Amino acid sequence: MTSQITLYTAKICPYAHRAEIALAETGIPFKRVEIDLKNKPEWYPNVNPRGQVPAITYGGPDHPPEKPSPEAEKIAESLVLVDFFNDLAPNHPLLPTDPVRRAKARYFVEAIGSRFTPAWYASYMRGEPFDKLFDGLESLQALLPATSKYAIGDEYTIADVAATPFFARLEVALRDDFGAFAQGEGPKAWKTLTTEPRFARWREYYANLKARESFKKTFDEDAVKRSFAVRFARNQ
Amino acid sequence: MTSQITLYTAKICPYAHRAEIALAETGIPFKRVEIDLKNKPEWYPNVNPRGQVPAITYGGPDHPPEKPSPEAEKIAESLVLVDFFNDLAPNHPLLPTDPVRRAKARYFVEAIGSRFTPAWYASYMRGEPFDKLFDGLESLQALLPATSKYAIGDEYTIADVAATPFFARLEVALRDDFGAFAQGEGPKAWKTLTTEPRFARWREYYANLKARESFKKTFDEDAVKRSFAVRFARNQ
Ligand SMILES: [Ca+2]
Repeated sequence: MTSQITLYTAKICPYAHRAEIALAETGIPFKRVEIDLKNKPEWYPNVNPRGQVPAITYGGPDHPPEKPSPEAEKIAESLVLVDFFNDLAPNHPLLPTDPVRRAKARYFVEAIGSRFTPAWYASYMRGEPFDKLFDGLESLQALLPATSKYAIGDEYTIADVAATPFFARLEVALRDDFGAFAQGEGPKAWKTLTTEPRFARWREYYANLKARESFKKTFDEDAVKRSFAVRFARNQ
Repeated sequence: MTSQITLYTAKICPYAHRAEIALAETGIPFKRVEIDLKNKPEWYPNVNPRGQVPAITYGGPDHPPEKPSPEAEKIAESLVLVDFFNDLAPNHPLLPTDPVRRAKARYFVEAIGSRFTPAWYASYMRGEPFDKLFDGLESLQALLPATSKYAIGDEYTIADVAATPFFARLEVALRDDFGAFAQGEGPKAWKTLTTEPRFARWREYYANLKARESFKKTFDEDAVKRSFAVRFARNQ
């Protein structure tokens, strides 16, 4: 009998999206609870004292979302959860068995967090010029095998789970001009990413990530657009 | 037959020390190469294009340190290497098999990197007040079980490998007054950590980390002190 899992998540949040993709990939049953990040319920610290999504309750009795059972484990942090779901699933689909290939997947995850995400947030949240973002994306791209479907080869791993939600929100933000950057700069940057030869390999990779069922099933582009439109409303 | 491992490392570096502790814990044979971080050899990018320690060559023929074999895998990043050595060792000693306990170990590793290390570097490298460091350390401490030998229980895991090198260098720096902080502030902060009830649980935990053979075998306190003395020479 499988232990109950209640996932606290938010459609806007790329970190939470990682957990949702991993759950879809592993097929582990769970209950989904949307948290309004702009208006968090006062009971949410009982799930995650640090207040963030994603977080889960695991085990213990079934419980209403707002009454996490004291008997349940509480687990948070997107990458901890991705590994947890992979560990729970009997076939461990999100990591190969070979130690070198596992290391490559983990290295790619680290590179996303150190080379890409800070550069993305610098442009998107603070309006800094795009060159650091382009360099960061190119640095990630350089790690990709010359011809592979995914980050470390043809199997889909934690590396791809980690990357996908960020690329998907980068697309919406730049293409539709949502961010702290000056008006019109988003689509310009998106044109760079979608047409310049410099990013051809990234385009192939990203297309494969978007084609994945677990992504299509868990990404609500309209919800993300609406959130961006509120957050980055421009004076017309 | 085990594949050759050549570890490029530096006694001063806490990240490299993680790799050395993990190798000692797993008993995997390796060749150790000290890299002078202030004067890196011009061939070092052939080992790690990003120039940092720790990094390894894995597999391929035995090779002199300065001629990493093109046949060898090159693997870098301290936590990637800790997991790699654990994966290589047949008994995988650094992680339990239970998914929840594995998640706790990974959560602790994440907390070190997000709550402790930045606060430590703020004081030690930039002389900022110690309150953020104390809060960060207390936040980590709060994750420890009430009475356990190590971070997630009585088994030694990747969580303990990740924490130990930073605590050890914090001790030397504060106790012996090496850092960007004003003269005398280091020992004052060390007195806080070693005497206030607020940090009693951390002291128990740190004592257990220091008692571990893999730490004693791999920590050269004199070398660390000498490096600190050069880096943080005070005008007398
Ligand atoms: Ca405690």
